[in-house]
Amino acid sequence: MLRGEILAVGTELLLGQIANTNAQYISKKLAEMGISCFHHSVVGDNPDRLEDTMKIAMNRSNLIILTGGLGPTKDDLTKETIAKLFGRTLVMDSKALTYIEDYFSKKGRTMTENNKKQALVIEGCEVFPNDQGMAPGMLVSEGGTHVILLPGPPKEMQPMFESYVQPTLMRIAGKSMSIHSRVLRFFGIGEAQLETVVSDLIDSQTNPTIAPLASDGEVTLRLTAFTDSKEKAVPMLDEVEEKIQARVGQFLYGYDDTSLFLELKKLLEEKRWTLSCAESLTGGLFQGEYCSMSGASQTFVGGVVSYTNDVKQMLLAVRPETLASYGAVSEPCAIEMAKGVMRQTGSDVGLSFTGVAGPDPLDGQPPGTVFIGMADKSGRTNCVKLELTGHRNVVRQRTCKHGAYQLMKWLGE
Amino acid sequence: MLRGEILAVGTELLLGQIANTNAQYISKKLAEMGISCFHHSVVGDNPDRLEDTMKIAMNRSNLIILTGGLGPTKDDLTKETIAKLFGRTLVMDSKALTYIEDYFSKKGRTMTENNKKQALVIEGCEVFPNDQGMAPGMLVSEGGTHVILLPGPPKEMQPMFESYVQPTLMRIAGKSMSIHSRVLRFFGIGEAQLETVVSDLIDSQTNPTIAPLASDGEVTLRLTAFTDSKEKAVPMLDEVEEKIQARVGQFLYGYDDTSLFLELKKLLEEKRWTLSCAESLTGGLFQGEYCSMSGASQTFVGGVVSYTNDVKQMLLAVRPETLASYGAVSEPCAIEMAKGVMRQTGSDVGLSFTGVAGPDPLDGQPPGTVFIGMADKSGRTNCVKLELTGHRNVVRQRTCKHGAYQLMKWLGE
Repeated sequence: MLRGEILAVGTELLLGQIANTNAQYISKKLAEMGISCFHHSVVGDNPDRLEDTMKIAMNRSNLIILTGGLGPTKDDLTKETIAKLFGRTLVMDSKALTYIEDYFSKKGRTMTENNKKQALVIEGCEVFPNDQGMAPGMLVSEGGTHVILLPGPPKEMQPMFESYVQPTLMRIAGKSMSIHSRVLRFFGIGEAQLETVVSDLIDSQTNPTIAPLASDGEVTLRLTAFTDSKEKAVPMLDEVEEKIQARVGQFLYGYDDTSLFLELKKLLEEKRWTLSCAESLTGGLFQGEYCSMSGASQTFVGGVVSYTNDVKQMLLAVRPETLASYGAVSEPCAIEMAKGVMRQTGSDVGLSFTGVAGPDPLDGQPPGTVFIGMADKSGRTNCVKLELTGHRNVVRQRTCKHGAYQLMKWLGE
Repeated sequence: MLRGEILAVGTELLLGQIANTNAQYISKKLAEMGISCFHHSVVGDNPDRLEDTMKIAMNRSNLIILTGGLGPTKDDLTKETIAKLFGRTLVMDSKALTYIEDYFSKKGRTMTENNKKQALVIEGCEVFPNDQGMAPGMLVSEGGTHVILLPGPPKEMQPMFESYVQPTLMRIAGKSMSIHSRVLRFFGIGEAQLETVVSDLIDSQTNPTIAPLASDGEVTLRLTAFTDSKEKAVPMLDEVEEKIQARVGQFLYGYDDTSLFLELKKLLEEKRWTLSCAESLTGGLFQGEYCSMSGASQTFVGGVVSYTNDVKQMLLAVRPETLASYGAVSEPCAIEMAKGVMRQTGSDVGLSFTGVAGPDPLDGQPPGTVFIGMADKSGRTNCVKLELTGHRNVVRQRTCKHGAYQLMKWLGE
């Protein structure tokens, strides 16, 4: 049975210059694999303290994953310290050396002795290639204890972990099985509500497991199956998903790494429709987010930020009577804004946001009151009223997500 | 001499659900105070492992700061474990109890026995009030060792640290002096360049110290003076700032917690001018960011997202000849966009962005090519060309910051 522990090496962590996100990443991976992790530690670039901390770790754990201290500078002493602890020497790894030489010749730069040092590995170790940088990773196994050395930069460590460390750990843990995950993404249901509705499933399910996670107004459930092939995993995941769908299927909007915006973009692409947007309280946030997606210009033509009533009239042709009778924060105004921006930009669909971001009330409406207007070229219109809570920018961000979600629902009707 | 160490308690850290940002925050504070921190550790909500880890910590450190495990649930066992280690009991703190009772009566909710448990503190400890939540912090000192217990949620821990822990630590460390910081914020100069220009000052300065930090295209220098009063600190900070200003003063845009957007907003407020904005590659990002500031409506009227050439013509009256002769990614188009949005919205100043976010070239221009257009009601216009590097959304975000910076410079001329 593996008892895992993560040891990060780096004075920058002890000075608070960075957070130990490597420990978080590796912990998450270990949890997915069903490998226990009981401790995290951090020490600086100090070989004596690293040695002391390693001795403590080896006394209580049989899997120690180190990050950092594999670089080319004098401060980088992780592999030297671990080699000494195991009474081994450092040897040149010819593959790593060739890789480093190639890297420098490609860049047209001269390789120094320092860089050559990065190709030194601990005698008798298993080497993990570094596809994103120069320092290779290592596994030293002795007397039932496994010590893994990984580079500190997350952009090198993470791909190395996924490609090489994860399969190695599954082998060491004696798990012939592999991990197959599926993330279900929900919107329009709170975390507490979702957990309550599926809590008996979460408690009773062991394979696949169900893990809820909430962030930024969205909730996800990660289903993780341990089995020996993808072919076997799919029906296992399907079966659990079916049970979940039966209870909260109406809130499920997508799978894995998607987002509400990406799903909306896909839907518009399928329909070959273009979108425009008129934003009041969100002030450009929705459009800015939509345009952050590569290829947004296929489905998005542009829009208007109508922060003042004058701009609503001038650029969106919202009628003065509408503003006078109902105010800017109203269903009639939202619908005129959506129709106006669609007409002015010549798009197929218009979406609008008007409301009160806060902190102060507006037009007699309390903060968090939001109207989302929709219009399409067939003449259909729709409006959804929200009553959100939270600070100004939470309200604005939630409004954008609700906009993407509600528009998808409406276009799908 | 204090040898510090930070111990976080919480299974959620070992599962990778959150990163240990508390350790980062406290480390930064200790570094500012000149107190050494040699170790971080994390253990789960397990009293035996917490006890073992505490014993290791007390063996090598004389200042141990714990975070987490002070909540009302059965899992929260930090104070019980520490009390046991020191052979002390838990006693009810009347101030904390009154505070908790008030909290519940204000919310109109019933207090349970669990919540009462939060007012229990370690016999003979110094109590730190929790101004943002229910669990008080504690200091237990014995035989030259100091153990501090803090709540886990950062929004409770950080204010408690600043208000109560920091002064206590200064007292324990025998520092009669206090800390006075000033952050200088720069834009338009790279981190490496800034560091090179002031590296001799960074190396030679001991009080105040100078610490550089880069993030999101901005660079800051934090000046920290140790002295016994604010009155004495100000001239010390002024003197160092003067030396820095003499070298890179032209890139300094503000102090402490400000931002480029906030400085632009202040400038517009002073001038009593209103802004409108026309965005192409940034797609609403600038306006969305500007409107994230409370009170933005005083100086911002709205604008246009003109993602396509059609929208540039329809909503901004950019001339077809301009687009035909120079393309959309050009100085003439940027200036027509700025003038167009100013005219259409009736604002005093117009700002525009047109360019290539990438990944693909556009109008024969490579990704990262950006034109920022400016116009004001007196008829003045200006255009700045940028050649940025980085991914699509890095280019878009940098463009917005450059826009705020360049507009401020131009309005100040």
